[in-house]
Amino acid sequence: MRFVTYASSGVPSRVGRLDGDTVLDVGFDGDMVAFIEAGAPPGVERAVPGARLLAPLVPRSFRDFLAFEGHLVNAYRNLGREVPAEWYEVPVYYRSMGTTVIGPDTVLPWPSYSRQLDHELELAAVIGRPCRDVRAEDALDSVFGYTIWNDMSARDVQRRELPVGMGPAKAKEWDGSNVLGPCIVTPDEIDLDTLELEVRVNGERWGGDRVSAMHHSFGDLIAYASQDQTLLPGEVLGSGTATGGSGLEQDRWIQPGDVIEMEAGPIGVLRNTVGTPTPAPTHQRKDN
Amino acid sequence: MRFVTYASSGVPSRVGRLDGDTVLDVGFDGDMVAFIEAGAPPGVERAVPGARLLAPLVPRSFRDFLAFEGHLVNAYRNLGREVPAEWYEVPVYYRSMGTTVIGPDTVLPWPSYSRQLDHELELAAVIGRPCRDVRAEDALDSVFGYTIWNDMSARDVQRRELPVGMGPAKAKEWDGSNVLGPCIVTPDEIDLDTLELEVRVNGERWGGDRVSAMHHSFGDLIAYASQDQTLLPGEVLGSGTATGGSGLEQDRWIQPGDVIEMEAGPIGVLRNTVGTPTPAPTHQRKDN
Repeated sequence: MRFVTYASSGVPSRVGRLDGDTVLDVGFDGDMVAFIEAGAPPGVERAVPGARLLAPLVPRSFRDFLAFEGHLVNAYRNLGREVPAEWYEVPVYYRSMGTTVIGPDTVLPWPSYSRQLDHELELAAVIGRPCRDVRAEDALDSVFGYTIWNDMSARDVQRRELPVGMGPAKAKEWDGSNVLGPCIVTPDEIDLDTLELEVRVNGERWGGDRVSAMHHSFGDLIAYASQDQTLLPGEVLGSGTATGGSGLEQDRWIQPGDVIEMEAGPIGVLRNTVGTPTPAPTHQRKDN
Repeated sequence: MRFVTYASSGVPSRVGRLDGDTVLDVGFDGDMVAFIEAGAPPGVERAVPGARLLAPLVPRSFRDFLAFEGHLVNAYRNLGREVPAEWYEVPVYYRSMGTTVIGPDTVLPWPSYSRQLDHELELAAVIGRPCRDVRAEDALDSVFGYTIWNDMSARDVQRRELPVGMGPAKAKEWDGSNVLGPCIVTPDEIDLDTLELEVRVNGERWGGDRVSAMHHSFGDLIAYASQDQTLLPGEVLGSGTATGGSGLEQDRWIQPGDVIEMEAGPIGVLRNTVGTPTPAPTHQRKDN
């Protein structure tokens, strides 16, 4: 099943599913997180002509890992760092905020305080039921489905923030910095062993990788996060950037007006247009 | 005003306020975040005998900064690092999750995967109204009130996670890792210029500092976080640890059964007892 959140005339936001290219309303009163919590109950479906897809959910939380070695080697070189030995042992993550999420076919806001915007191609798992202290080998049973996550990043800001050791802050967080979509595909329709991720800019392939190349698997990520902690339906865990999934790795940079497409098998294509930088408010300029 | 969330017999959780030591129910149906969003409406108050205080709110988000230079110098020395030049320029933060919060007079869970637990004494600001792109000099107008935040930290885990550059993950996140309370004091009853923070372990002062010593002020923190991003009522921003506010700084470590008291003027005392380490689940032990 491929689930979406859609808008149509007079309807700001409803849960649907895709049947081919057609959006069917699933007959559920509540948002995607409530739908997942309710166990994705079957309802009376009806086609919704002219539906527009939104972010499939407003995540209860975002955890973003760093599971692709290829990305890490490339990115750390360009950030002037070496891959630390600890990375191979510990699936570390940082967190972001659900309030920042936007969906497919939108303009990506270019933050006023950055001059160097970048995309990040990721696969994201959406938690489907409460879980705690799960084993890696059992962890995928807790996944409701998978979607694409474009984790937009302000690299100039990240270079300033990284040395402090708290992880990225404003480097990865502004209104619209996290893009999800176009749909959530349930695990029965996803083969993680063969799934390929790809990012294209203006139609040209910039990079991509197989999900199977992850050094830390989704099972590992969920097991690590759930140690002594309850994960809840609607929490999102990201793979980290696929190899070649960012411009940072190749010192190649997106520009206003560029069209970014991220594709992942049955999840489809997450397509957005890079926005135009807006001037910082006067009182911010002294800091940038 | 000093606002609380309380439980009493048959009432799992309601908003109240303190009148001396008495809890008055404020006559609001909803949780603290909803109460703040509603503008803290006056209602019909009634005393609640035998009320027990809970965490004053389940934050919509946690952002934790590093604003006290004294703590940073001490802590970084013990983590084997120097204070980076960027810290003086950029008020970097990491995020934590509201679902982890617990309140006063509880037992602090000792995570199964850590052998070195530590406390962190912090002042926290609770956002009171939506704000974006606010100036530092105006930012305190967006604060609903202040509370104490004990940001519990697993230092052995932090040492493993820090080199990866994503900030702390499981080092600061498990069920019960964030302690707030005992109440939220509105800004009219707080003087940030003179407010002192102190932490005591089993009655002995371990450290503390004046809030005025913060290198980055609360105005700076809110201004930084709100760049190109809307902050919402019920989001929490922490000062970072006050100088001497952790054991890490002095290589002195809390033990099961210790009583930790954190005091901050009119906010009162946040008191908790350190729990007993529980064995890790069998499947986790190989990793630790």
